[in-house]
Amino acid sequence: MPAIAKKRPTNSKGRIIRAVRRHGKVDAAVAIRERGEEWARHWNAGDVEGVAALYAEDAVYLPPHHEAVHGREAIREYLRAPIAHGVSELAFTVTYIKQQGATAWDVGTYRMMIPQNDGTLKEDKGKYLSVWTLRGKNWLLVADAWSSDLSAPR
Amino acid sequence: MPAIAKKRPTNSKGRIIRAVRRHGKVDAAVAIRERGEEWARHWNAGDVEGVAALYAEDAVYLPPHHEAVHGREAIREYLRAPIAHGVSELAFTVTYIKQQGATAWDVGTYRMMIPQNDGTLKEDKGKYLSVWTLRGKNWLLVADAWSSDLSAPR
Repeated sequence: MPAIAKKRPTNSKGRIIRAVRRHGKVDAAVAIRERGEEWARHWNAGDVEGVAALYAEDAVYLPPHHEAVHGREAIREYLRAPIAHGVSELAFTVTYIKQQGATAWDVGTYRMMIPQNDGTLKEDKGKYLSVWTLRGKNWLLVADAWSSDLSAPR
Repeated sequence: MPAIAKKRPTNSKGRIIRAVRRHGKVDAAVAIRERGEEWARHWNAGDVEGVAALYAEDAVYLPPHHEAVHGREAIREYLRAPIAHGVSELAFTVTYIKQQGATAWDVGTYRMMIPQNDGTLKEDKGKYLSVWTLRGKNWLLVADAWSSDLSAPR
């Protein structure tokens, strides 16, 4: 819409960026929330391919008790073990999603059930920080860190 | 500069944002790297106020074995205990810093020495994911997650 473009303040970089930030802000949060639910659904179904597809090719995954895992391929291979271990009933609760342009960060909590050696299930709970970027029409994870809230065993 | 503004393609939101992203990209990485070194320096000096000043007022801190800590005030209070415990020789190594506009995410590793009950020091190492935003002239932490690489005690 050229007519509107001409009416913009000339020193408008900041204004335009702020407008873009506002534009689609709700959509981004909705889309990212859905992607998070998709993550949990794939995980609970034991679908490691589905989980890995939510990561950008150059993403990094930062799980506790392990070094950072770089790249979608490596993330998929890393996740095979916990998925095979039968971790289940994973659910995320979003605390907030903040967006600036094509980048968003997503802070929230999780709960999941972890099988113990005696055959029982133990609840774990913790929090996560995920960074998403818009690639084409899809929000993809580019960095994903989490850790348990529970005390370290002594 | 109205003349230049008029020459911009009218459907230029994306172009302008990309230009802003390029602009200052190097400076941002340098500035954030310096802020990280400042973090470690304040920490090693036991200066909790100095560390807290690197966080935005609405930042979130996600340490292992604890719930997410929301807000600069709460982060400062939370950090008093580990600083008083005498954790020392903290050093960060940046793996990469990626920036889009006024947001950057910073992935890296850390090493630090933790005092044990028997008076000795034990090395811990792990990784972090930090999200920074440019507020005024300063890059401030808005979200900061980390966890140890070491195996969980059994």
